[in-house]
Amino acid sequence: MIMHSLTPQLRNSHYCFLPKFRNFSFSFPISHKFNFINPNFPQNSKTYPTFIVRNSSGSITAKPSSELRKKRGNDSDFCSDSDQKLGDLRELFSKPNINIDAYIIPSQDAHQSEFIAECYMRRAYISGFTGSAGTAVVTKDKAALWTDGRYFLQAEQQLSSSWILMRAGNMGVPTTSEWLNSVLAPGCRIGIDPFLFSSDAAEELKEAISKQKHELVYLYDCNLVDEVWKASRPKAPNKPIRLHDLKYAGLDVSSKLSSLRSELAGAGASAIVISMLDEVAWLLNLRGKDIPHSPVMYAYLIVEIDGAKLFTDNSKITSEVMEYLKNAGIDLCPYESILSEIESLAERGAGLWLDTSSINAAIVNTYRSACDKYFSGRGYQNEIERSNGESSGPYAVYRSSPISLAKAVKNDAELEGMRNSHLRDAAALAQFWSWLEEEILKDVVLTEVQVADKLLEFRSMQDGFLDTSFDTISGSGANGAIIHYKPEPGTCSILHADKLFLLDSGAQYHDGTTDVTRTVHFGEPSSRQRECFTRVLQGHIALDQAVFPENTPGFVLDAFARSALWKIGLDYRHGTGHGVGAALNVHEGPQSISFRFGNMTPLLKGMVVSNEPGYYEDHSFGIRIENLLFVKELDTPNNYGGHAYLGFEKLTFVPIQTKLIEVSLLSDAEINWVNDYHKQVWEKVSTLLDGSARQWLWNNTRPLVKP
Amino acid sequence: MIMHSLTPQLRNSHYCFLPKFRNFSFSFPISHKFNFINPNFPQNSKTYPTFIVRNSSGSITAKPSSELRKKRGNDSDFCSDSDQKLGDLRELFSKPNINIDAYIIPSQDAHQSEFIAECYMRRAYISGFTGSAGTAVVTKDKAALWTDGRYFLQAEQQLSSSWILMRAGNMGVPTTSEWLNSVLAPGCRIGIDPFLFSSDAAEELKEAISKQKHELVYLYDCNLVDEVWKASRPKAPNKPIRLHDLKYAGLDVSSKLSSLRSELAGAGASAIVISMLDEVAWLLNLRGKDIPHSPVMYAYLIVEIDGAKLFTDNSKITSEVMEYLKNAGIDLCPYESILSEIESLAERGAGLWLDTSSINAAIVNTYRSACDKYFSGRGYQNEIERSNGESSGPYAVYRSSPISLAKAVKNDAELEGMRNSHLRDAAALAQFWSWLEEEILKDVVLTEVQVADKLLEFRSMQDGFLDTSFDTISGSGANGAIIHYKPEPGTCSILHADKLFLLDSGAQYHDGTTDVTRTVHFGEPSSRQRECFTRVLQGHIALDQAVFPENTPGFVLDAFARSALWKIGLDYRHGTGHGVGAALNVHEGPQSISFRFGNMTPLLKGMVVSNEPGYYEDHSFGIRIENLLFVKELDTPNNYGGHAYLGFEKLTFVPIQTKLIEVSLLSDAEINWVNDYHKQVWEKVSTLLDGSARQWLWNNTRPLVKP
Repeated sequence: MIMHSLTPQLRNSHYCFLPKFRNFSFSFPISHKFNFINPNFPQNSKTYPTFIVRNSSGSITAKPSSELRKKRGNDSDFCSDSDQKLGDLRELFSKPNINIDAYIIPSQDAHQSEFIAECYMRRAYISGFTGSAGTAVVTKDKAALWTDGRYFLQAEQQLSSSWILMRAGNMGVPTTSEWLNSVLAPGCRIGIDPFLFSSDAAEELKEAISKQKHELVYLYDCNLVDEVWKASRPKAPNKPIRLHDLKYAGLDVSSKLSSLRSELAGAGASAIVISMLDEVAWLLNLRGKDIPHSPVMYAYLIVEIDGAKLFTDNSKITSEVMEYLKNAGIDLCPYESILSEIESLAERGAGLWLDTSSINAAIVNTYRSACDKYFSGRGYQNEIERSNGESSGPYAVYRSSPISLAKAVKNDAELEGMRNSHLRDAAALAQFWSWLEEEILKDVVLTEVQVADKLLEFRSMQDGFLDTSFDTISGSGANGAIIHYKPEPGTCSILHADKLFLLDSGAQYHDGTTDVTRTVHFGEPSSRQRECFTRVLQGHIALDQAVFPENTPGFVLDAFARSALWKIGLDYRHGTGHGVGAALNVHEGPQSISFRFGNMTPLLKGMVVSNEPGYYEDHSFGIRIENLLFVKELDTPNNYGGHAYLGFEKLTFVPIQTKLIEVSLLSDAEINWVNDYHKQVWEKVSTLLDGSARQWLWNNTRPLVKP
Repeated sequence: MIMHSLTPQLRNSHYCFLPKFRNFSFSFPISHKFNFINPNFPQNSKTYPTFIVRNSSGSITAKPSSELRKKRGNDSDFCSDSDQKLGDLRELFSKPNINIDAYIIPSQDAHQSEFIAECYMRRAYISGFTGSAGTAVVTKDKAALWTDGRYFLQAEQQLSSSWILMRAGNMGVPTTSEWLNSVLAPGCRIGIDPFLFSSDAAEELKEAISKQKHELVYLYDCNLVDEVWKASRPKAPNKPIRLHDLKYAGLDVSSKLSSLRSELAGAGASAIVISMLDEVAWLLNLRGKDIPHSPVMYAYLIVEIDGAKLFTDNSKITSEVMEYLKNAGIDLCPYESILSEIESLAERGAGLWLDTSSINAAIVNTYRSACDKYFSGRGYQNEIERSNGESSGPYAVYRSSPISLAKAVKNDAELEGMRNSHLRDAAALAQFWSWLEEEILKDVVLTEVQVADKLLEFRSMQDGFLDTSFDTISGSGANGAIIHYKPEPGTCSILHADKLFLLDSGAQYHDGTTDVTRTVHFGEPSSRQRECFTRVLQGHIALDQAVFPENTPGFVLDAFARSALWKIGLDYRHGTGHGVGAALNVHEGPQSISFRFGNMTPLLKGMVVSNEPGYYEDHSFGIRIENLLFVKELDTPNNYGGHAYLGFEKLTFVPIQTKLIEVSLLSDAEINWVNDYHKQVWEKVSTLLDGSARQWLWNNTRPLVKP
């Protein structure tokens, strides 16, 4: 599955959600950064596509999406009278302890999650606009909603006349802070929920609105939308947390904590606060069910040199997990007590490691205030005096999270789980494709949604299946060209024998996470479609076969995947590969393979990446071929410079439709690649199949014949 | 010709000379930056090679290098008693108007030139070390010289016992400023000639030595080495300046000045000072003979909205040039009067465009002081008050030079001159190779230097020949693996029939500049040599054939040139391509094709770049295949995204030795490339040849036969 790209004009807009890629060596313009031109942003990069993360849907479990959508369609909560809500919200503005002139409601939860629980969908609730990306801003007499080109139509339909739709990226459309600076008289108070902004984003916002002498007001005590939402607000998720088996995790929690503590000591810190949910889950070998598609739980974790505290809802903790945490030396604390613990850390003189690109402003500011309090209580002006060695006391260590890279480099057990889950996933896909081809042959009318639901059915029957890893992208014909396409029951298309069909899907298993895209034609593809498909395939092969010295950042390989398309003046507007978690989030950093040449993270042995070049012809068809790969060290005949040379090994084993390949365009080496791959697919997956699915696999792994 | 790379450890050392690439979007650690870790420097980039510029030799004309070397060998001036010179220098330290504790002598001239005139080789004079890269630092009781791994041996031989050799890049070796901070008592005065440091470099030095409260003292009035050198110092070059014919320049001086003035106005500036010698030459369509290899003259240029002044030695100006300058509205001023004119600009309230990465500290500081004087004389504190609109007055506009990009994008006339000069150059090379093969066949003993001199002889006979464009790299066997190899008469090797021979050379013609490398074997190459050569060739072909969307920076294509080598664990430690001037410097920016992924300059239609992958096996052999290319727009069948798609057209037409090609490794497309290229070589160059050279060309352009 690709991470969605925006049109080039949107690159610097605040709708480039990139929470998972916060560790890129230059900071991305992300949602809350309110559209500043980042001074580190490549100036002439306007032609290069931006990765943004997938539409986060409202679906919470692995129920068929048609069912969920039905639920959502009837859910009056998001669609009910927006004016009433706005009125209620504005009434809160003038309360004495609030006293603000405007309030900003972003899409985020407190953890920069890609997918979020329903109770945190405040922007959708207040505005009625349910798209995944958007920011609402409410002043005393105006309400505006920013979203990007993917959602203009949906927003027009969902927003009431009380709302101004800000078509982000269109010429002349102001950014959120520009708009606030223009509509408010100077010197206003602009409120935010500081949990919903990363510290960096809040700082940038503060700076931007200071031009009109506005003040950014952190409202710690309550989220104003929640106050309006009241009783109808969904409960915070409290599904039980489970242990992630050591045979899948590969490394026990005490080893992981021990490594982390060494890193803390090395950085001169005595504690760290971790807020990214997949980082908490990975570090503790725990998994949750709080969020659709991501096997994580809402929690913060504080690790100190001599202890650790997990902040989460007690009701999620089974006795088994309770025992496990106790053995690991981890205390349990209420989720809501995170700020008081942060204060306590300062009082105890901790050196706290803070990744301000991901840790929310509530936490960072609370720590800073507590440090100030510590020093002023002792007669020091600030922590600088401490750094002169004249006193001890708390201090912040501002660094990227050390968990991100450790999590990205998979150990043998994690890779083994990924391999195994991919084979079961491939078996489910073979069953699905076999079923689908038969249905189409029988002229059964099937919608894109029905097809996605059927795929879920096949996957659900596989051992260890938990959930989809993202909303299935099931796009027939022209819908395949919409990179972020999400079929809806009422409006989606029917599959046709004479159209291309693009299917990008993935699953969460106990032992691994999958993400695979195939494009097929049920009838006779045109020569144009064959040429485009073949060039996408050539790009896919070129990346798959790449060999490169250690320490090579992913962007160096991106052009390999585009070269065959470039030769005839074609390209695609998204990156080529993203990181994937092991039984964790389908999108993770810090590595990527894309034109984001600011991401200097080298591809390291053990990292998992997607390989997903594509080509999209607007209003006509879309093509994408996606496998997951992991980085491995190769046994090259030379090792120039004393370097290891790295390459990829495939995790995904699903046939690539040979009908769509124009063999005359392929080199001998490329033909051999296709044939070798299909040979492996047959060998690895056929044993998991029988009947028509096995026959389908046989038929679809026959070698290409050289012309 | 490649730009030299250093070993990885040297990346951040102050020996990475990159004056030509000063416009890279992140600043490079260059000579005078004194080894600061640049905060913008990619942290994990240690495996990527650095471009540095070629060894600047002492040769001044196009005389055979053997002759020049003979001269240099006998030139006692550089080798005479170093202790006496040091004593004389130190005596100056205590003069009342000087009063310093240390003096730093860099390799540079005042214009950041790659090649410099002999009278500016102060570091070589004072230290006795004649290598191209090095910095000398003299305190009252110590003298130290920093150079890099290429010159350790030479420096050991040339430095007297009074000097400490600092092996830059070796573990534990301090940087220049670190050393000064350690050997001097705090609070010392460290002198420099501010003309010899870019403003940025001087500022960095100032900051570094301030840690020990040292003061950086600008000695404007005299260069202390010149004071010691006295009468024996060579005269400043004063060769006549000539007009560069409009049929080669393509654009007249008034058009160029008019564009520049528009840029000035657009940037809110009213004047600009230009100090890079090739920029002055390009802008005025003038050429000089002051420096070996580069057809430029020592000069500064100041362009104002309504006038322009050229600062150069009057004796270089012929009556024709005088008339030409007058017609172009350019006044002539003495070279030495640059600072007084800078002061006058401030007094007249100019807004002066300054590129502080290339303009020397003397100019920048003089302007700043004059601005301060202007404002304090009028009761203002500084120029900030002006920016509040409360007063008018002088101000600095800090920006990269606008000439660099304009010069890099060649117009049709410049490209025509490049094409034509390359064909004549190819004819000379065919004569040379034909001659050389015959000599070797006859077992004539030839040294690397003799061979280079013979090549010069053939080139000298071509129309419009002026000079070599750099010192010829003529390397037999193991010498070919030394990327910066410069054969010396006494010590150089003899060509052998059983060894590879690498020849990297180029010339300056009236109409263009060439730079070409070929590697040949006179006998039977080993299969190892054939495999390596073939993979270098595959990289060369891949880059030559690359198609890419407009706005692509050069580094995106670099991996194409390495991919075939990477497959077997090989690589090369230098960039793949540099810009080349049109009848100007053989190295120019701002574009490059290399792992320097900080250089975001897109490859633009009309830019000239070299394509020179290589492979070097230490103590054994070196391979490099270099053509010059220019960027052109392609007529692709599609133009996805509304973008133009670009590719390359070859300028160089010299046979590639097919004996070294392992045909079985090549794809059909690669075989076709070689055959097409040789067909073009024959068609374009054979008409310029007769006799044995023509026969040689025929023999060496026969098609490869597919295996």
